[in-house]
Amino acid sequence: MSNNQAAPAANATNTKHVVTVDTAGGRYPIHIGAGRLTHLAESLPADTTAVVIVTNPTVFALFGALVKKALSQLTVPISVVELPDGEAHKDLTTLNLIFDHMLGKQLDRRAVIVALGGGVIGDMAGFAASVYMRGIRFVQVPTTLLAQVDSSVGGKTAVNHPLGKNMIGAFYQPIAVEIDTNVLTSLPDREISAGLAEVVKYGLIMDGDFFKWCEDNAQGLRARDPALLTQAIRQSCEFKAEVVSQDEREGGLRAILNLGHTFGHAIEAGMGYGQWLHGEAVGCGMVLAAALSEKVCDLPSTSVTRVKNVVHAIGCPTAAPALNGFEQWMTLMRGDKKTQAGEIKFVLMPKIGQVIVRSAPADAVQAVLKAHCDATDTKTA
Amino acid sequence: MSNNQAAPAANATNTKHVVTVDTAGGRYPIHIGAGRLTHLAESLPADTTAVVIVTNPTVFALFGALVKKALSQLTVPISVVELPDGEAHKDLTTLNLIFDHMLGKQLDRRAVIVALGGGVIGDMAGFAASVYMRGIRFVQVPTTLLAQVDSSVGGKTAVNHPLGKNMIGAFYQPIAVEIDTNVLTSLPDREISAGLAEVVKYGLIMDGDFFKWCEDNAQGLRARDPALLTQAIRQSCEFKAEVVSQDEREGGLRAILNLGHTFGHAIEAGMGYGQWLHGEAVGCGMVLAAALSEKVCDLPSTSVTRVKNVVHAIGCPTAAPALNGFEQWMTLMRGDKKTQAGEIKFVLMPKIGQVIVRSAPADAVQAVLKAHCDATDTKTA
Repeated sequence: MSNNQAAPAANATNTKHVVTVDTAGGRYPIHIGAGRLTHLAESLPADTTAVVIVTNPTVFALFGALVKKALSQLTVPISVVELPDGEAHKDLTTLNLIFDHMLGKQLDRRAVIVALGGGVIGDMAGFAASVYMRGIRFVQVPTTLLAQVDSSVGGKTAVNHPLGKNMIGAFYQPIAVEIDTNVLTSLPDREISAGLAEVVKYGLIMDGDFFKWCEDNAQGLRARDPALLTQAIRQSCEFKAEVVSQDEREGGLRAILNLGHTFGHAIEAGMGYGQWLHGEAVGCGMVLAAALSEKVCDLPSTSVTRVKNVVHAIGCPTAAPALNGFEQWMTLMRGDKKTQAGEIKFVLMPKIGQVIVRSAPADAVQAVLKAHCDATDTKTA
Repeated sequence: MSNNQAAPAANATNTKHVVTVDTAGGRYPIHIGAGRLTHLAESLPADTTAVVIVTNPTVFALFGALVKKALSQLTVPISVVELPDGEAHKDLTTLNLIFDHMLGKQLDRRAVIVALGGGVIGDMAGFAASVYMRGIRFVQVPTTLLAQVDSSVGGKTAVNHPLGKNMIGAFYQPIAVEIDTNVLTSLPDREISAGLAEVVKYGLIMDGDFFKWCEDNAQGLRARDPALLTQAIRQSCEFKAEVVSQDEREGGLRAILNLGHTFGHAIEAGMGYGQWLHGEAVGCGMVLAAALSEKVCDLPSTSVTRVKNVVHAIGCPTAAPALNGFEQWMTLMRGDKKTQAGEIKFVLMPKIGQVIVRSAPADAVQAVLKAHCDATDTKTA
């Protein structure tokens, strides 16, 4: 289970919230606060023999100097691996660049990886840590809103395969997650919107009141009000910590976190990874999931409208691409990891704040796609 | 902890010994007996949706038909991935052939991998299982003596990297290990000798009486006496189960299983993977470790002679290759995963049946290599 506490607010850059994640694979803190990058060394264990910062050129140009300075108080070698930027490079070939670097330096099992970047960097650096010499420690330092509220917490790591997203990976927990809310000022608007889609998701799956809070504050969140964003991140991390503490390896409960993801993954794969941001695809996917929920588990149409409106309000697309028609949609969705014996499992909402995982009749899925796909394949956000 | 029991000997092909491995990563049985291949279906869970046999052309030609027939009683699709044979192909590129196959067939998380082959196949199939969709179930079906007594038990999986052996991998336990002693009749003599090196190793690290038994029965073991081999396999699996049950992730105790491996890995890497069999390199490595033990922890010289004699008696080399001199030896040994902050850790014997893990002065290592390296680099077995 998770808990949280606010440290004494001695000064602005030292205020932090702590959310604890407790799984069979490890218990670790999420530190949330403005200026956490300057405190990174606190999360490195005393027996660390080397630190490897895994990042990309864009992120390293923004925060590299700050992070290296923060880590320099450790008396161990610090090196940097810059991976090519973007989902299109999240594969085994790019992963191997991390191994080349670390083995070239003969780094041992007490080296620690610092994943500095968004979800792609976190997924690859975490997966590399899970398999380097059969597992070394790593710290997540997410620099996108989406990574801060979702992918950096819970230990899902992976790379893509040409035949499917995140198909090769591991459940492997970091030793700490460091969330610096200051980094959000550097993000493009589209990245803020994409991150907010995952924030809204927690309301839809776990807490109708929080969903209402998202509706009420959509404009302030999108405008990056620091207090609102901090509250959204903290609440999201608490929800996620609660779910993964109960179900680290997606045996059952954890699947609820995939609301909007079955449709969303099909959008990402069908359009080509990197065309839509993951959060944009999930935002749109939640609209489709709400529409399907109306058809197969009686979600009121007013709730479907609320979902569509909030997804629009945070700046995400609400119309899906047509792709190459229904058959391509079904083929791509069958590739989802929740599929069992060929049957697609959807996360659906009987009401806002509550979800179930079940299959759905093909004609209902087809009707939803027909109603919500934009034949011109252009986004409407 | 391990235990063992003999099932009722109803008929010759149905006699089995059971050794249980109990780790945080899973509790599973090792079944040992003549004809176990025909009983493979017993180890597949009821909710299996597909079986993928991962093997190589040599092994599949020998046992493929038998295994497919044994599995055919399951009403699920069975498919085969044949990987290129040999340690030289144990890499990420070859591993990806398994993913290509499984994703091409859209196999889900309830598919089960059957690793049919020696250590290379077991390591790769196990690693593939550990990362396919973040982890699916697999069964080890080792077909070499070395894999039966060592690599198939304990959940170490990995592939090699150009800069080091087994550098990329996972601790990931199978759901069962099926050891059919009948398959040993098909092995080349060299493979029997290599496997016996790991058998002898258990005596050296854990049980002086078992080491004595190995000395007394070296010729019978090498001649493949079925009763002796079965006893050697069962005893080896019990020793290994005991160690990995206490230390799944090589936090301390498990390192003792690496007796002979620091020198051995250097031989394999220095000569080029596949030139020496792993067991041959370990056999020779144990001779070097014994000689180093005499220098730094007072192993009696008579014991060093016993080690050398039994390694010779089982048909393994006792003289090491010179490689490119002492510096190359040290560079290769520093690449060992036990190395901490640049200091090589050796598994050494104060006496036969007992080991410690420690560093050693460079001049002692150099003297041992000088005394035991064959400048012509030819094996003396």
